[in-house]
Amino acid sequence: MRVLVLGGDGYLGWPTAMSLSEHGHDVAVVDNYLRRQMVSEAGGDSLTPILNLSQRAKAWHEVSGKTVDVHTFDLRDFDLVNRLVREFRPEALIHYGQIPSAPYSMTDRRHAVFTQLNNIENNLNVIFALVENDLDCHLIKLGTMGEYGCPNIDIEEGFIEIEHRGRKDTLPFPKMPHSWYHASKVADSTNIHFATRVYGIRATDLNQGVVYGVHTDQTVLDDRLLTRFDYDEQFGTALNRFCVQAVVGHPLTVYGTGGQTRGFLNIRDTLACVELAMLNPADRGELRVYNQFTESFSIRDLAVEVQQAAKELGLEVEIHEIDNPRTEAQEHYYNPTHTKLLDLGLEPTLLSEDLVTATLSTLLQYKDRAIVDAIAPRTTWR
Amino acid sequence: MRVLVLGGDGYLGWPTAMSLSEHGHDVAVVDNYLRRQMVSEAGGDSLTPILNLSQRAKAWHEVSGKTVDVHTFDLRDFDLVNRLVREFRPEALIHYGQIPSAPYSMTDRRHAVFTQLNNIENNLNVIFALVENDLDCHLIKLGTMGEYGCPNIDIEEGFIEIEHRGRKDTLPFPKMPHSWYHASKVADSTNIHFATRVYGIRATDLNQGVVYGVHTDQTVLDDRLLTRFDYDEQFGTALNRFCVQAVVGHPLTVYGTGGQTRGFLNIRDTLACVELAMLNPADRGELRVYNQFTESFSIRDLAVEVQQAAKELGLEVEIHEIDNPRTEAQEHYYNPTHTKLLDLGLEPTLLSEDLVTATLSTLLQYKDRAIVDAIAPRTTWR
Repeated sequence: MRVLVLGGDGYLGWPTAMSLSEHGHDVAVVDNYLRRQMVSEAGGDSLTPILNLSQRAKAWHEVSGKTVDVHTFDLRDFDLVNRLVREFRPEALIHYGQIPSAPYSMTDRRHAVFTQLNNIENNLNVIFALVENDLDCHLIKLGTMGEYGCPNIDIEEGFIEIEHRGRKDTLPFPKMPHSWYHASKVADSTNIHFATRVYGIRATDLNQGVVYGVHTDQTVLDDRLLTRFDYDEQFGTALNRFCVQAVVGHPLTVYGTGGQTRGFLNIRDTLACVELAMLNPADRGELRVYNQFTESFSIRDLAVEVQQAAKELGLEVEIHEIDNPRTEAQEHYYNPTHTKLLDLGLEPTLLSEDLVTATLSTLLQYKDRAIVDAIAPRTTWR
Repeated sequence: MRVLVLGGDGYLGWPTAMSLSEHGHDVAVVDNYLRRQMVSEAGGDSLTPILNLSQRAKAWHEVSGKTVDVHTFDLRDFDLVNRLVREFRPEALIHYGQIPSAPYSMTDRRHAVFTQLNNIENNLNVIFALVENDLDCHLIKLGTMGEYGCPNIDIEEGFIEIEHRGRKDTLPFPKMPHSWYHASKVADSTNIHFATRVYGIRATDLNQGVVYGVHTDQTVLDDRLLTRFDYDEQFGTALNRFCVQAVVGHPLTVYGTGGQTRGFLNIRDTLACVELAMLNPADRGELRVYNQFTESFSIRDLAVEVQQAAKELGLEVEIHEIDNPRTEAQEHYYNPTHTKLLDLGLEPTLLSEDLVTATLSTLLQYKDRAIVDAIAPRTTWR
């Protein structure tokens, strides 16, 4: 299948490109290295040393004999998006190419506006490139579980049947996003849903949980194929951050009571989910929404898990409950449905102490690269 | 009360400013005349002759002895928004200042992107100006009934209690917007809701129906105080368009079967609703949503109403069912709740043949200004 991966330089984008390439698909990637800039602005850097996209593609070719096509431009430039789509004619388009950070978006007005305008415009550009080229291409868009917030009812996969005053309809699941960033993804979902109804495009919205893990089947093959690994306060996510904190001897920073519960998945499962969605495309005019995570954990539980795994490696790690910089419920109901990807055949890689220990061992190789100042949270929600 | 009216040059903004000024409030308006440009681009012009804002404010001062403060700038310029908010310190901020046209947004990618980015950014600027100046100001934001679409259940006012698998929560009412424009208003609603939760601002989101009518208590006083009246395919709305079509001898353009049913209200009621919301502000941290319309009609029924009223004036008017340029259900369930503004004391001005006849009589005075070429729909949804 011809697959275009947007955001192909990212934590998930690059491993996805390699994995699909390995599985025989014809892969092109686009990125403008915005994420690298933003992490740098946040005072951080990938813990793993990473090459640029042409170097990566070259290394991948040497390792696998396969080719990944590299394009470097901003997805807000419609002419370039449109030209690439017209020439490459993707059968599937996997859209990871957005600003992914809640804290970044909460920094101030400028960051809020930039996050929303960047994400909304580049998503509209993608939609219009498919429509204007009249392609029967399946749009696979990365959303987030954070679009839903934490309602007091079970979260369904995108849609919910509502019975109200004797009538019934199946409608988009109500959204209560956690940040300006999450709100940008809600806007994207609304826009994609509209595009399926009006233009008849096929789309799958993957409301992903928090991804963890450092290696995939391809990144382990050669150090030049490593994907980025962020741990700074803005672009690092819960479990990955704790792992870096553990290897550098920083206390694990639990925000508030740590009762916040979220869905998580291993990076290998992200790759599997995206490929499953791709191999089983949505119908014309259909928006499918999958809740893409495999397990729910509270932040507290994750901290304890990392602490125990670290002990196996002889690392003494403290857990610190620090003032929660976010405005969020610290204890709440959380029971989202996530069966649709399992129905397509997903076989989850579940979290285990062994898995965390292995991750910590890998990260220990790069611990001297850690910028410890980037760890403590500075961005507050108020 | 100190009231800032954004979009103060518009169909509703200008009459709102005069009405609040008449009622003793201290009113400032902002506009950048974008609407005038866009109507011009659509090949149209206000049927009523209108002055610019300084001329209007001068005329209003001569007629009433009262002052409306005029500011001319783009709300996407945060520094200017912020400075005005800091200096004027509004107690209420009424935000009409957005691109309001579904067909305009459906023209092509550029218009879709411009509509969404303009509306979303200027709304974020307003939110941040209130937050950064730490004002206890009530944000009254104009939304639209078109945010909801036409679900098969009763539409509640912004929120709905959902019982699901034995648990209950009251959540934002699901949205299925009709156009890129309507989707921009959904994004605004999501953003305002988030801002009430995180920053504790007070907000009222007025999901308004289709407004009709040419005169208010102030516009009748002097021709120099007239508000704009649009009838072109992009900025004219159903009933107003039919009235202009009737006076210029153009067949009434019913899209498809005309079974599309929408909520409508008189322009005088818009002014009353906005003032009621203002005089009864939301609490700190509260987002109130009101469905702001007084009656539902099908497009077919409105055409017949205008045809009959025109007959009273000796005008023979035909009704033409033309191919629907929009993607929308032409026959559907529609029963939105709209009691909250009535509970606050709204006394609706209901549609009647007399009222339509009076509107037609007023418009007949300006019929020579009509640009007939601007009437037929050219913008399609596909």
